Amino acid sequence: MKHVIFGESHGNAIGVVIENPVPGIELDWEFINSEMARRAPGKNSLSTSRKESDNVEILSGVYEGKTTGTPLCAVIRNENTRSEDYSKLMNTPRPSHGDFSGSIKYAGNQDPRGGGHFSGRLTAPLVFAGALAKLILKQRKINISASISKVGGIADPSEKDIENVITEARVNNDSVGGAVRCSITGMPAGLGSPDFGRNIEGIISQYMFAVPAVKAISFGAGFGFADMHGSEANDPFIIRDGKIVTETNHSGGINGGITNGMPVEFEVAFRPTPSIGKAQKTVDISEMKETEIEIVGRHDPCIVPRAVVVVEASAALAACEILGI
Amino acid sequence: MKHVIFGESHGNAIGVVIENPVPGIELDWEFINSEMARRAPGKNSLSTSRKESDNVEILSGVYEGKTTGTPLCAVIRNENTRSEDYSKLMNTPRPSHGDFSGSIKYAGNQDPRGGGHFSGRLTAPLVFAGALAKLILKQRKINISASISKVGGIADPSEKDIENVITEARVNNDSVGGAVRCSITGMPAGLGSPDFGRNIEGIISQYMFAVPAVKAISFGAGFGFADMHGSEANDPFIIRDGKIVTETNHSGGINGGITNGMPVEFEVAFRPTPSIGKAQKTVDISEMKETEIEIVGRHDPCIVPRAVVVVEASAALAACEILGI
Amino acid sequence: MKHVIFGESHGNAIGVVIENPVPGIELDWEFINSEMARRAPGKNSLSTSRKESDNVEILSGVYEGKTTGTPLCAVIRNENTRSEDYSKLMNTPRPSHGDFSGSIKYAGNQDPRGGGHFSGRLTAPLVFAGALAKLILKQRKINISASISKVGGIADPSEKDIENVITEARVNNDSVGGAVRCSITGMPAGLGSPDFGRNIEGIISQYMFAVPAVKAISFGAGFGFADMHGSEANDPFIIRDGKIVTETNHSGGINGGITNGMPVEFEVAFRPTPSIGKAQKTVDISEMKETEIEIVGRHDPCIVPRAVVVVEASAALAACEILGI
Amino acid sequence: MKHVIFGESHGNAIGVVIENPVPGIELDWEFINSEMARRAPGKNSLSTSRKESDNVEILSGVYEGKTTGTPLCAVIRNENTRSEDYSKLMNTPRPSHGDFSGSIKYAGNQDPRGGGHFSGRLTAPLVFAGALAKLILKQRKINISASISKVGGIADPSEKDIENVITEARVNNDSVGGAVRCSITGMPAGLGSPDFGRNIEGIISQYMFAVPAVKAISFGAGFGFADMHGSEANDPFIIRDGKIVTETNHSGGINGGITNGMPVEFEVAFRPTPSIGKAQKTVDISEMKETEIEIVGRHDPCIVPRAVVVVEASAALAACEILGI
Repeated sequence: MKHVIFGESHGNAIGVVIENPVPGIELDWEFINSEMARRAPGKNSLSTSRKESDNVEILSGVYEGKTTGTPLCAVIRNENTRSEDYSKLMNTPRPSHGDFSGSIKYAGNQDPRGGGHFSGRLTAPLVFAGALAKLILKQRKINISASISKVGGIADPSEKDIENVITEARVNNDSVGGAVRCSITGMPAGLGSPDFGRNIEGIISQYMFAVPAVKAISFGAGFGFADMHGSEANDPFIIRDGKIVTETNHSGGINGGITNGMPVEFEVAFRPTPSIGKAQKTVDISEMKETEIEIVGRHDPCIVPRAVVVVEASAALAACEILGI
Repeated sequence: MKHVIFGESHGNAIGVVIENPVPGIELDWEFINSEMARRAPGKNSLSTSRKESDNVEILSGVYEGKTTGTPLCAVIRNENTRSEDYSKLMNTPRPSHGDFSGSIKYAGNQDPRGGGHFSGRLTAPLVFAGALAKLILKQRKINISASISKVGGIADPSEKDIENVITEARVNNDSVGGAVRCSITGMPAGLGSPDFGRNIEGIISQYMFAVPAVKAISFGAGFGFADMHGSEANDPFIIRDGKIVTETNHSGGINGGITNGMPVEFEVAFRPTPSIGKAQKTVDISEMKETEIEIVGRHDPCIVPRAVVVVEASAALAACEILGI
Repeated sequence: MKHVIFGESHGNAIGVVIENPVPGIELDWEFINSEMARRAPGKNSLSTSRKESDNVEILSGVYEGKTTGTPLCAVIRNENTRSEDYSKLMNTPRPSHGDFSGSIKYAGNQDPRGGGHFSGRLTAPLVFAGALAKLILKQRKINISASISKVGGIADPSEKDIENVITEARVNNDSVGGAVRCSITGMPAGLGSPDFGRNIEGIISQYMFAVPAVKAISFGAGFGFADMHGSEANDPFIIRDGKIVTETNHSGGINGGITNGMPVEFEVAFRPTPSIGKAQKTVDISEMKETEIEIVGRHDPCIVPRAVVVVEASAALAACEILGI
Repeated sequence: MKHVIFGESHGNAIGVVIENPVPGIELDWEFINSEMARRAPGKNSLSTSRKESDNVEILSGVYEGKTTGTPLCAVIRNENTRSEDYSKLMNTPRPSHGDFSGSIKYAGNQDPRGGGHFSGRLTAPLVFAGALAKLILKQRKINISASISKVGGIADPSEKDIENVITEARVNNDSVGGAVRCSITGMPAGLGSPDFGRNIEGIISQYMFAVPAVKAISFGAGFGFADMHGSEANDPFIIRDGKIVTETNHSGGINGGITNGMPVEFEVAFRPTPSIGKAQKTVDISEMKETEIEIVGRHDPCIVPRAVVVVEASAALAACEILGI
């Protein structure tokens, strides 16, 4: 289930190719569309006002409603783009955005409109791919669910907390970061490896850091391990319902890089959206002098609520890789 | 500079094959041995009493003292092994060790002596490979340095703090976790990609999670981003000495998955050594009943001091991959 | 320049994603279209009567006429499909086609219309990708050219020979095979490796066998080596214009899996199109009894003339991989 | 079952790391040694007079006589080396050897003694890895067997033919090429893919071109397809013993890049050993002038007899990859 995501925010289309999907999976469009809707902007006052219809068109790899097993290309046309918002930014890289690093990598050829290929909009095809992965995993009784673990400094926030924090950021022309916790249940024990390139933590990390704005990942107790003794941290083996399980799950379901049959649990941190309305220092590259920038345009003051389903999608794709499908 | 590490703690030998090293690198044995010594146990009262000579033998890939560019195999013979310590553990998996997950993956065929292939001893050839990578990076003015950022709950600990924390754990037949901070300076801007499998955070994570006991990684402000506003988190661009740099480095030198020319900075958390002398709950697998285990043998109550050079070694190998060498 | 080709003959579209193209390459559409035209069917009486307009639509990765360096997706819509031709074939696999092996791999879910994902039509996006690769290689003074070396048993055939052989096959409701010879000039010496997965012959072979109907590849003297003595086969080193070259090029520009600076030369064999009008034995799978099949529909009696540019395209992509771009 | 081969002809040792072997495979040393013996030189007057004991030492990955599933490193020490034979060759590259191309790739750092990493001696650890692969395949009823299909221009040669051809070459200070035919029986249908990087022909080719001196590969009728009509070339489906099989096997067991359940059959061509005693033209690189070379030392006038088991070994490793083990 290798995948490649393509597209730019204001180009013709964004999309994904899933190279070798499991054949015979029925595309449950009610489910897929509900997943897409979880990520879509414009649902409420908390997110960007850009409307996206996000209609997925299947170009290949589906026949009579089911995956064929050959490469599946899904495309979402771009509409409702307002590229003029971005035209001034060419020479003044936005702090902590990919403008500067990207312009060096791509020798100035990248599409600057709306963040181009760096745009969070590219998580739409990722959610599509993840929805397909979830349909496959469901047949194997594997379930994935994520939730907001932190937003703007508040741990385990309520709906109200989230709304308050984000509204406050919006009012101040600012943005806020947060974190998302994810659990994969039903993974069989014995998958992965201690070795480079095959261990579970390394595989999941690759998928998570491909999500824009993710800057940290922890498994089980994560950074909390740095404060613990072995006697607290270790997960004792016990027998429940005739099966060997662990009493606690500080290890996040992984020992020695290999699944141990407990839920695979991890948390990822999202940086605050770098695009903010407040004035920021930057450099005018053409004149090589310091200047200021105020970013206009439509931006989420906090991407964390919309990112929950993106984390699940990436986790589903990672789970497929771990299972060898 | 792909590498493969092989070996078991109490087998014939451990080692590494570096598949395609840069040719013409002179093996500076004084430097390599000093790196090996930083990892070696038995230096002081804080680590395992197992003595390892860790003499590296080069089997291939070096001619007249320099790398040939063809696969380099380096081997360290195992000595001073005391396998009888581990003989009882076969049926009673040690909590949070790879015993249980590994026995499922390997269908019970893994070498149980001294942790087998899961042993921290396998970081010795990793440090060798890292030392070679550092010699290559030095020619490109790239430097890597790591230090202990936390141990047993104490942030930025002094030598004295570290000694106290670890001694206390040893006395209590317990162990403690910690964290290591690492910085790679001199990396050119424009390396990496926002795309899956090629972004800097994903690449570095793969190397770090291949280090035994690493359970979390954060780049720049990391999980701290979850508490920040964009206006605090963003790194303003400024001009210093005629170069565009950022005033702060919360991004850890990476924007959009691509290096921005600032130091690449990250931190990894280490779980406490799972092998502790205290009695722990476990299961007797052959009789499927709950029991207790007290682990004897030589174990570090805290691997963090010895892990600093291991983190540097893995970072050096990651940097080589990022540079395409 | 990794690429993924997707699509089915009679699905919505076929296309290609080029994952990481060199940025800043101007899409020379005159050249690209001329390459597409070399592959297009319906040009003359020798090929299938299916008309394809083969208009390439760029969905991503191009901005202001140049590659951005981010994934480039190019799509060709399918038109003028006549699926009813294929409807009877579902239960009676066509001899030497992918019907039978594919139905096992894909558990019967593959798109059967027009050969589905196995169709030679998928070489259209391959030619597009190859044209882009050629534009990149041209900047490096690397040139690729292929020609028909054999058709229906005639070596080095003239235009007239080719026409006669193919017309005869068509008249007899049969098909004929052939071979294509290809040369890559301008490749620097010192690329490749003797090692598995990195040697030049192995890399080029992967690209060539991904072309439908290719069943053999030889480098330099190829199978002719089996008839030669070393004294005839070896390519003596000589000096020409101050450069070390070889007097002959039986090695096809490759020694020890590494380019030696001479033209990289190889030949590939194409099997006769398996779809023929003549009656053939096959099995009715649903009833598990032997039966006969006469394939109707539009098929090239010989794909070799159209395959020349496909071989060049694949060689161009292989050359990019060898160059590390 | 990824593998990496390391070593140089006259270095400390040659060997192989098998990264992720199937666990629990008993190392049948009688079988392994018999395979090694099939490749070993010095058995008779036809091959090089170098004696090799080729004792394999297992450094890792085997416990109580069985594979553990963790990386297996096997090493063969070099003995009986006579490096002085090669000392003069440094400045005068041997025609059609890897001396010249390698010295560019490795910037002159490669080990020149006895061909270094390019030596045919590195096929010894390959045969070891192949023997292990065969033990795994045997459990799945997959069998591999190869034989000489041509030597010095004689097709399907008898023992006597082979001896005559090789003796004649030796007497003339020359060498001869040949070809080896290989068959893999028992492969299930439905493995592989039409897609780049996953098709059967492409996978097998990668393994075969990693064998020194292989310059061509053909599947089934191979280059013979260029002389055939579809009506001759196609393999009709028939029913035998209640199973769908093909009446002929011109496709070599592969349709559309996917196994069809028939034996996978291919042939590879070996160039004549480039090291010959006869005077040859070459260039003195240090003085940039043309000169002559007469290669002394111990060389096989024909490697084909010893290559049979090497082809089988590579085919066994390829089969494991195709099976996903």
